[in-house]
Amino acid sequence: MVLPFDILEYHQRLKETKQRMEEKGIEVLLITDPANMNYLSGYDAWSFYVHQMLVIIIDEPQPLWIGRYQDANGAKVTTWIYDENVIPYPDYYVQSDTHHPMDFIAEILLQIGHGNRRIGVEKDNYYFTGMALERLKNGLKNAAFLDATLLVNQVRLIKSDQEIEYMRRAAKITDLAMEKGIESIQPGVRECDTAAEIYYHLVKGTPDYGGEYPAIVPLMPTGEHTSIPHLTWSEKPFVDGNAVIIEIAGCYKRYHVPLARTVSIGQPNEKLKQVAPVVLEGIENVLAFAKPGVTCGELEEVWRRSIKKHGYEKEARLGYSVGLNYPPDWGEHTGSIRRGDTTVLQANMTFHLIPALWFDTDGIEISETFRVTEKGSERFTTYPQELIIRDHLDLSGQIS
Amino acid sequence: MVLPFDILEYHQRLKETKQRMEEKGIEVLLITDPANMNYLSGYDAWSFYVHQMLVIIIDEPQPLWIGRYQDANGAKVTTWIYDENVIPYPDYYVQSDTHHPMDFIAEILLQIGHGNRRIGVEKDNYYFTGMALERLKNGLKNAAFLDATLLVNQVRLIKSDQEIEYMRRAAKITDLAMEKGIESIQPGVRECDTAAEIYYHLVKGTPDYGGEYPAIVPLMPTGEHTSIPHLTWSEKPFVDGNAVIIEIAGCYKRYHVPLARTVSIGQPNEKLKQVAPVVLEGIENVLAFAKPGVTCGELEEVWRRSIKKHGYEKEARLGYSVGLNYPPDWGEHTGSIRRGDTTVLQANMTFHLIPALWFDTDGIEISETFRVTEKGSERFTTYPQELIIRDHLDLSGQIS
Repeated sequence: MVLPFDILEYHQRLKETKQRMEEKGIEVLLITDPANMNYLSGYDAWSFYVHQMLVIIIDEPQPLWIGRYQDANGAKVTTWIYDENVIPYPDYYVQSDTHHPMDFIAEILLQIGHGNRRIGVEKDNYYFTGMALERLKNGLKNAAFLDATLLVNQVRLIKSDQEIEYMRRAAKITDLAMEKGIESIQPGVRECDTAAEIYYHLVKGTPDYGGEYPAIVPLMPTGEHTSIPHLTWSEKPFVDGNAVIIEIAGCYKRYHVPLARTVSIGQPNEKLKQVAPVVLEGIENVLAFAKPGVTCGELEEVWRRSIKKHGYEKEARLGYSVGLNYPPDWGEHTGSIRRGDTTVLQANMTFHLIPALWFDTDGIEISETFRVTEKGSERFTTYPQELIIRDHLDLSGQIS
Repeated sequence: MVLPFDILEYHQRLKETKQRMEEKGIEVLLITDPANMNYLSGYDAWSFYVHQMLVIIIDEPQPLWIGRYQDANGAKVTTWIYDENVIPYPDYYVQSDTHHPMDFIAEILLQIGHGNRRIGVEKDNYYFTGMALERLKNGLKNAAFLDATLLVNQVRLIKSDQEIEYMRRAAKITDLAMEKGIESIQPGVRECDTAAEIYYHLVKGTPDYGGEYPAIVPLMPTGEHTSIPHLTWSEKPFVDGNAVIIEIAGCYKRYHVPLARTVSIGQPNEKLKQVAPVVLEGIENVLAFAKPGVTCGELEEVWRRSIKKHGYEKEARLGYSVGLNYPPDWGEHTGSIRRGDTTVLQANMTFHLIPALWFDTDGIEISETFRVTEKGSERFTTYPQELIIRDHLDLSGQIS
């Protein structure tokens, strides 16, 4: 298997990670976030539903991969680390009430002489459970445990040119899937039919670049449910006069470019007609303001002022850093575009700007994923930035 | 929104959960597993990437839902619990380094007078992090914390007739997606093209029943990688003479029926020809032996003896309880078909029997999902149980 990045890029990532470890006084870093495991080693498999980790030791050149026996070959073929550093645990540790993989891992750390060091763990990562923390502490009584949540995510904030290139490919897939998905929407078509169309193109990708599974499935709240952003599709047919929100991301080499659009089936109601220009103007203002040196909090301020003129307010954050990830989230959990966020924009940071407005029984989402450039910002996708209208009267020629 | 189960079925599930809480001396149960949240309340949304939970209080008739503000409407429309019991936290708690949702939740539990009780938490669930445990303990110093991992999963082991019906619908989707996916395989077609075909049918479902996103994406290791079960697809074309393993699950109302098949592109090599009948004989023996009263450990023994005759051994477990779930796993983490597992089969338990054999550079997977019946067992799917051969010489009429 060919690694998606040059070996020197992985070395650079590891070096920056170790710098941050030193700043925090961490000698051994246990990485359980699958995106961080991938970022540092290349490891790529759907094996994160069992306990596994990458061990970064401050004074060792190579990470260790520790995971399930049947996944060890995957660590050998998808990473740059030496086979000797791939340490499998037997299958009786898997989802067992008598053996826990963290006991095995603690034992390994003791054996190789790191049981009494300052150990960083990603305490708030999905794949580092409360029990994992307890069992590690129990097995390593002479170690000091430090929180290293987001330590590697912070390194991920600024993308390399190769990462940006992968996001550009992902963006092409996003554009294609959004176009084909929206084309399929008409009264009587089931939501699952449109979701299938979207998924087909997300996964097939373009003739040049095959798609991968996104970290979040297509979100498709419809009608009254457009006030509820995280609903997926149902098996109900679309209804004339309803709106549907589509939020998807193309994915290439695990890099995501999300995009949301609101689609009116038939002519939009007054509320949508009124609010869409407010959102679009806000997006324009935010993207025009974004450049190196500006903070995420200042971006939010631009948005807030922009919609306040029209009498609107927004409770939730408007965006977040995005890129490499695995389920359940394509966000990177570092910079958020919201009030008070002090993240300073730098070139090659990438954000999903999704300044949705939700009301009691409806909502609107129009989003853009953008890159911070040397002097400003640029969008990844080209799909029209507008309220999309699927009027079956206009489309009569296309409908059988 | 119509709930997928009668309200009485939810009440029965809650009652059984409370019985287990009593047995363990748990007064307040904090449910963070999205499948368990769905099982008890109906809650269904892709919101588990932020902290959220269902709170079961032993002496209160209704659960509480606590989650993100923008997801609260989802809790109101997808669950049977009263709107007053839906408690949202503000957005500045989301992925923040200054506010943690568990602080909010601890505060709520204090306010409503449950801060000093015996609290059960799902310590080893993906969506209950080490930090979640620490913050809760910190915020509720007078509470006693007990481990309740798998408490609700144990209730889920035996399915109701309605759950079995949903699995039958999922099985129809599995059969369809497996058939269409395998039909698409031929030399030169990219792995992502076949994955797209599979996903299309998994999500579209049948004309009667729309499909949903499975908790695991299609797994498709190919060629030498058939020794690595948890690789997904690549953008490389299939090669004549290689094998590909396909493991997928149709999903309906979040209930899964997984199925794995090994496909030889062109005539199979000697190894595959030799080992396939061994696996098929083993499956037949296990399914013939499965019935109420038998343990999972005894099923493994039947398999072990069956393949040992032919000189084979298997390291990993051969199966697991399956049904309702969310990413990253469709397994239920209760009964495992492996040596020493004491789970006693009962009617309407459902298992994915996947007695894969992996070698250094290849492997074979042929699986069945089965239900324990009153007297034996029955398969959910009808797709041919054999080594599948896609010989392009035989298929010349179908290939342009």
